[in-house]
Amino acid sequence: MQAPELVDRMIQEDRRAVARAISLVENAAPQLREIMAGLAPHTGRARIVGLTGSPGVGKSTSTNALVKALRARGESVAVLAVDPSSPFTGGALLGDRVRMQEHATDNGVFIRSMASRGHLGGLSWATPHALRVLDAAGFDVILVETVGVGQAEVDIARHADTTVVLCAPGMGDSVQAAKAGVLEIADIFVVNKADREGARVTVRELRQMVGQVERAPEEWKPPIVSTVAAKGEGVEELLERLDQHHAHLTDSGELNRRRIARAREEIEAIVMSVLRERLGDIHGHAGLDKLADAVATGHGDPYTAADTLLSALDR
Amino acid sequence: MQAPELVDRMIQEDRRAVARAISLVENAAPQLREIMAGLAPHTGRARIVGLTGSPGVGKSTSTNALVKALRARGESVAVLAVDPSSPFTGGALLGDRVRMQEHATDNGVFIRSMASRGHLGGLSWATPHALRVLDAAGFDVILVETVGVGQAEVDIARHADTTVVLCAPGMGDSVQAAKAGVLEIADIFVVNKADREGARVTVRELRQMVGQVERAPEEWKPPIVSTVAAKGEGVEELLERLDQHHAHLTDSGELNRRRIARAREEIEAIVMSVLRERLGDIHGHAGLDKLADAVATGHGDPYTAADTLLSALDR
Repeated sequence: MQAPELVDRMIQEDRRAVARAISLVENAAPQLREIMAGLAPHTGRARIVGLTGSPGVGKSTSTNALVKALRARGESVAVLAVDPSSPFTGGALLGDRVRMQEHATDNGVFIRSMASRGHLGGLSWATPHALRVLDAAGFDVILVETVGVGQAEVDIARHADTTVVLCAPGMGDSVQAAKAGVLEIADIFVVNKADREGARVTVRELRQMVGQVERAPEEWKPPIVSTVAAKGEGVEELLERLDQHHAHLTDSGELNRRRIARAREEIEAIVMSVLRERLGDIHGHAGLDKLADAVATGHGDPYTAADTLLSALDR
Repeated sequence: MQAPELVDRMIQEDRRAVARAISLVENAAPQLREIMAGLAPHTGRARIVGLTGSPGVGKSTSTNALVKALRARGESVAVLAVDPSSPFTGGALLGDRVRMQEHATDNGVFIRSMASRGHLGGLSWATPHALRVLDAAGFDVILVETVGVGQAEVDIARHADTTVVLCAPGMGDSVQAAKAGVLEIADIFVVNKADREGARVTVRELRQMVGQVERAPEEWKPPIVSTVAAKGEGVEELLERLDQHHAHLTDSGELNRRRIARAREEIEAIVMSVLRERLGDIHGHAGLDKLADAVATGHGDPYTAADTLLSALDR
């Protein structure tokens, strides 16, 4: 399928075309440039919600509950599960297909995993591109779920309008983890599995943490929502909070600021990958191997070697 | 302290100078260029051993046991614990100081944690630079320990001559994890806590995994060592295996190849960070904000914006 046809089909809500476009993103296909140009006029409408939290807090159960609640309101939903630790691509995973089965006849739901780590270590534009595809395809809401822990949890905030951080009671380290970097990115906290022992303690701890941050009266204060996602409990409240946060983002002008910052990162990521390619092209001329040999044996230092390479790039 | 003096002191085994140099690496200090040039002639001697494995397998206990065993042989040892998920720098951590206490009067041991993630997201040259510092400072062996899971575990192999992957019995997912990418990087497997139930099963599973990989007769086949690091059991055998692997690397020419590949990556990382800085410098001229605004509102696509930026860079 040529790029213009693919774009046309996507706009006309052909979900297979959407899946195909995301595979092209995963594979860093050369057609991406044309596709992204074709999609541009159709973007900027979807609300992007990021969901993050340690393994075991019930991330995919919560995502599924949100999908149902959003569908009940008549909104179309795409779920993108991003796995930044995987260098392997290969389209929809088994898990996706299982999750999709429930919505098999519903064109308003789309679920897809994506490897965002290419063989060169990190396609930094992959997630933004995939979100761009889903946005242009007309989904009202896009839920981005991280797979993996650590940096991946924090990075999600760079891609979303609203970031939801999930915790669960009895996971002593979930609040600890929240302290170490996740606090800064949370727009909404969810204490899932709230029917379990210790849920109230977790809520209280989170409330204290949130309370300790100084903020101006007009600033958003992350609410804490208790849910039992497996039973659908608390999901309506979560949805309300999401709406409130979206309204806050729009009214305060923050939505625009976040989206421009994201576009800036996306452009820079493309520029850096072009430069990386150019560097690859001049390896032969500049004799990078010879330089690396000298550095490895102590006959040169990496900065002087980098200078040599850079002057070859400038020529 | 000026760079030449710092270099002199490091070469003369002043450990405070070593600690200072690693802080400069963490902070991406401008003096690094001069320091790395001064250190270059003194590098290329240390053996670099990477230790990785899921949390709970006994990584730091194993590191400590190795430190003792190496000291008993009269070799000097530096331990570098790299935390790629932390954007925070700030010198030696409390844990380092506790670990160092045991060796307080021993100038042949140096232990240090390092944040390798700068505010721009990943100082890809930080770990190589720190290893370069420790190498030039004359340590016979450098043990690099990863903090964190996922990609961090796999990345360590890019920095080490020999990579040791630790597992523990009863952690069902440790072998699973090994399957998902860690297998490729292991030069030696360690089943730690080998006095626990299930140790033999873990060893057998690993042996099967290792056996399934096709390799030429002259290729290295990762051995599996059982240890109880907390009691020092099996550490001598691990040391022997490390020596054997080092001899194999030297004899086969693989040591050279690995070190040249590492130098190449280090040079490229510097080149990319210079290019990233240049990009920052031209933001004003090229009006990146205006471009980002257009992309965010669907009036432009990221590739066309990237082209505009690149042509400004080329001018």
